[in-house]
Formats: sequence, structure tokens, C-alpha cells
Amino acid sequence: MSPVNRRIVLAARPHGEPRPEHFRLEEGRVPSPGEGEVLLRTRWLSLDPYMRGRMSAAKSYARPVEIGGVMVGQTVSEVSASRHPDYGEGDLVLAESGWQDFSVSDGRGLRRIDPAGPAPSTALGVLGMPGMTAYTGLLEIGRPTPGETVVVAAAAGPVGSLVGQIARLKGARAVGIAGGPEKCAYLTDDLGFDAALDHRDPGFADALARACPDGIDVYFENVGGAVFDAVLPLLNDFARVPVCGLVSGYNLTELPPGPDRVPVLMRAVLTKRLALRGFIVWDFADRAPDFLREVGGWLREGKVRAREDVVEGLENAPDAFAGMLRGRNFGKLVVKVA
Amino acid sequence: MSPVNRRIVLAARPHGEPRPEHFRLEEGRVPSPGEGEVLLRTRWLSLDPYMRGRMSAAKSYARPVEIGGVMVGQTVSEVSASRHPDYGEGDLVLAESGWQDFSVSDGRGLRRIDPAGPAPSTALGVLGMPGMTAYTGLLEIGRPTPGETVVVAAAAGPVGSLVGQIARLKGARAVGIAGGPEKCAYLTDDLGFDAALDHRDPGFADALARACPDGIDVYFENVGGAVFDAVLPLLNDFARVPVCGLVSGYNLTELPPGPDRVPVLMRAVLTKRLALRGFIVWDFADRAPDFLREVGGWLREGKVRAREDVVEGLENAPDAFAGMLRGRNFGKLVVKVA
Repeated sequence: MSPVNRRIVLAARPHGEPRPEHFRLEEGRVPSPGEGEVLLRTRWLSLDPYMRGRMSAAKSYARPVEIGGVMVGQTVSEVSASRHPDYGEGDLVLAESGWQDFSVSDGRGLRRIDPAGPAPSTALGVLGMPGMTAYTGLLEIGRPTPGETVVVAAAAGPVGSLVGQIARLKGARAVGIAGGPEKCAYLTDDLGFDAALDHRDPGFADALARACPDGIDVYFENVGGAVFDAVLPLLNDFARVPVCGLVSGYNLTELPPGPDRVPVLMRAVLTKRLALRGFIVWDFADRAPDFLREVGGWLREGKVRAREDVVEGLENAPDAFAGMLRGRNFGKLVVKVA
Repeated sequence: MSPVNRRIVLAARPHGEPRPEHFRLEEGRVPSPGEGEVLLRTRWLSLDPYMRGRMSAAKSYARPVEIGGVMVGQTVSEVSASRHPDYGEGDLVLAESGWQDFSVSDGRGLRRIDPAGPAPSTALGVLGMPGMTAYTGLLEIGRPTPGETVVVAAAAGPVGSLVGQIARLKGARAVGIAGGPEKCAYLTDDLGFDAALDHRDPGFADALARACPDGIDVYFENVGGAVFDAVLPLLNDFARVPVCGLVSGYNLTELPPGPDRVPVLMRAVLTKRLALRGFIVWDFADRAPDFLREVGGWLREGKVRAREDVVEGLENAPDAFAGMLRGRNFGKLVVKVA
């Protein structure tokens, strides 16, 4: 066991892209669990776009990380010492323990992971928060019906890839948008998407229109920006837009130049009777059992596939995180910590 | 009976505000009903903001009026001659007969008006399309719960005034936004709104914030523009925004200057989990019986009140219509034609 606890704290709030100076690796003593507590050792750390929001002081749906505070994040951790009646040494748990080697928990918020089940790291991806985000956003807000066209951006990521696969399982056409030919080939060849478009292609907007000859009925919004601009004119009457993320804007330091296109967007909402709705996964917490049963079943049966992008070493988390915001990852980004 | 049929046709498509030269008053022969048809004489013509959209060639939820075509509009008309088995001379009907003295109908789309019921012109207002717009948009999309705050703009108009009154009947707080002190006084003193704000007041945004100390849960969008800008920061998590109209933008000839604030709006949708949804009244056509029963009952019991702004003479419709788009009307604008 490592004699020190390494932890990555927020050193400064980024204005724009997170860079190395916004993080600091600190070493400290491994904490000791008190009565009723467990000591957790991080095995896998999840890196997710929402963390960019927590680095900023702006009001959002969750409190920002404080300067000097450990970066937040879900982990798969192993109980390395227990003074808690419900947990024994070696148990695997899902924890909100952040970017560090060790942490102490009183058990609240832990969820046990079945060591005989799927690979533990899937609890951070297809069977975890990203998977449930895809499942609930698509089915509770997007509500595709057979034959409809579902478009999703960041489609090679953990949320988008599941959105498209579930859309197909529900009888809809799935059109994915991703960055680069390799990711696009993965969507169509490995995941069965009906079409995939590279948003870096200069002819992207036209290609999207050709890939959606019957328009778009559901646009699962992960990215915002230029992709949304290309989608908006293609939305059909009564289209649904679950707004899950806006990753293209997370590092924006200023608004795009004018004109102000809010009236264009609102006119489309009115005349096409669009439904735009923001959500976060916890808004649908009561769907967790259905999600685990249904997506877990699809995964076992090979009807959905999930890809991981594994980074070795906690110290590499900041660079991997910054890369993810630029679309560098290919699959669910996880850090193998121990 | 007038020996001629006066009709107001679209002479040219306006770029910006409709002006006299965009309309033309034509006189023609009174048409003769064929077998199975009725001749209708217009008593009341409804003037509504949606008609501005029909004057433009841009794609919307309904086809534009053709150049030289009679301006569209709902009327309360009297059957002045009948060769239709279901209608007799003197019957009152709701018709889509447009801006003219006479028209012929084969009966399709007509709805009989009970001469013993409320004043016939209410079929164009509180018991007609505007009333049902308020009822369905508020209850199907806004869904206010007791104690929530409902804000509506164009609140002294036929849609907004009913939105606020229904919100109160459902136990919510109603805050109205209107143009000028007279309309604001009407909202609070006559209709029982909890507060009313004048959007022309230079301190409007601050006043709105003070009038909504617990934020805004439902914003019924009739106008867009600066009012929406003031509302957006006050929206609570999970607020609902039925998008019914954007009258402040109907005469826009160019987009407002930058920056482009679409990212601001989308970020609010995401972080506050807002639901924005456009609708037109016909999307909820199956609610018509409930609407007529419930709002009809409230009207009889004096629980809702409706105000009309009556203009005399078909020839005055263009000027009255242009004035309405600038907020000049005070209550449901109807033209007394005959």
C-alpha cells in the first residue's frame, strides 16, 4: 500500500481551457477510518465533462469545488480497512471520493459493486452515471418512436454511444456526430448507427441534412455550438431536444459574435413546436432500477457495446481531463489509479 | 343588405411593420351560395397577432396568405341565406371567413354559436381561440402548482389575461407584464393579479425581480425580446416556458446586435433544467370540450373576466391590426363589421 495519499486539488479557477496550473498534486498522510467508517482505496476514477463546471464559481446545479479542495469525481474503490458493520476489507464500492488515492467514508452514498458482475469500471460508464444519463434523457425526454430519426453529438462518448444504440433498439434511426473518421467508423461499423458524420468536415451541415432525409425528431444535445446550429434547421415539427450537456461551450471565455440569434431559436421553438428540456441524471433517480435491469441485460446479451479509454496513473488525470474537453478521448474516459 | 362585398386583401408582404399599403380594400359582388352552401355575413372579425405571420412568405405552421388573397381570420357570422340542410337564415356561426363582409361556406369548419349563450363575440376571445390558447398552454405545458409563481406578458390581452386568472384559480401567484399604468391597474384591480409590471418602465427588470421574490416557475411566453431577457435570470430550477407567441419579434427586420446569446439561453436550459415548449392551440384540440366547460363555467360565475377592444368598421381593420402589434389594443381586439 502506498504510504502517502496523493490528491489532485483545484489550484486556480480556469478562464477558458483547464491547464496544468489549475491543478496541484498534493501528498498527505493516508487518513484513518474512525468508528463506523471505511478507508477506501481508489481503483478507477471517472473523468466527465460536468467536472469543468465544478471548477468555475458560476452558479449551476451543483456547488463549485473550492480552491484547494480535492477535485470531485466518482470512483470505483476498494475497502482497504473497515470499521463499518456493512463493509469488509476487499469490498468494491462506487463512491464520490474524488481525484485521490485514499478517502474515508461513513458509508453514506456508497453503492456496492458485485465482483461477479460486469467489469467494475462499467459502473462509471455504461452501467453508471453516463449510461443512465443516456437512458433517461433519451427515453424520458426524447421519447423516440419507431421510424423516427435520433441525432446525437459526441456520439463516440459514453453518453452518446448509448443514446444511439438505445435509439436503434427502440426502432428509431440513429445518426451520430463525432470528431474524426475513426470515431465515425466505430459508430457505424461497431455500434450499428445508421449514419455517422464528422463535425470537423467542412461540408458537415450539408452531410447532416443528407443523412437525415426525413428531418430530425430527437436531438440529444451534448455539445451545443456549431453542431446545434446545423441541427436546428433540420428539426421536425414536435421534435424533442433533451439538453444534457454543452461541452463545446464549457471553455468559452466570451460569447460568440453577433447577431444575437436567440430570436431565431425561439421562433423555431414556436413555429415547429419544439420541446427543449435540460436535465441531469439525478432528476430521474427513480429510474435507476429500470436502467440497471434493462441496460444491464442488453450489455450481457451483446445488444449494446461500450468502449473505455483508460489512462494510467492519477497524476495523468488533469491532462486527460483537458483532452476530453477537446474531444481527444475515444470512449468512456477512466483513470486507472491503483 | 349591402349591395357589395368589401374584402381586405394582402396587397404586398410587409418588411417590418404592416402599413396601409400592404392591404387593399376591394369591392365585389356578394357571392351566391350553391346547393349545400350557406351565405355568411360577417358580424365580428377577430384580429390576432398570428396574422402577422401569415402575411410573410416564411415557412411557419400555416400557409401564408397569397398576394391578392383575402386576409385570413375567424369571424362570428350570420347565415344570411342557406341552401344547406343544417343551417337556417339568422343562425350564428363561428367561421374562418376572413376580412370581408360576405363569404360562402359548404359548412365545413363552421361551429354553431348559441344565441342564448354568452355574447357572440366571446367566441373569438375568452371562449374561443385565445381563451383556449391560454387554457391549454398554461395547464398542459405550464402546469402550475399551488404557491408557484406564474408570469405572463401581454397580460392585458386576451391570452395573457386569462393565463393569469386561471393561474390564480389554480392556487398560483400571477404576475402580469403589460404596457402602461392603465393596463397594469386593470390587471391588479379588476382581474386580481398579485402584481403587474409595466415593461416600459426603465426599472422594469428590477421591478420584476422584486415582484417575484421566490423566482418564476412558469413563464407564459407571448412576446419575447426584452421581457424574456428580464425573465430568464429569474426562472427557477425546473421552470416551464410555454412558448405561445413572440409578438415583439413579428415585425423585426433584422436580428438584434451581438453577442450571440444562444449559449446563455442553452446554459440556463441545462443548469436550471428548464422546459421550453412551443405550441399552437390546435395541438390540444382534444381539450376543447374541457376548455369550454371549465372556462365557460368560470365566466358565468364571474370568476374570470374578459375585456374587449371593439373597432367599428371593416375598413379600420388594417390600422387596428398594426396598432395591436405595437400593443395599442386593450383587451381582445375585434372588429364590428355589421
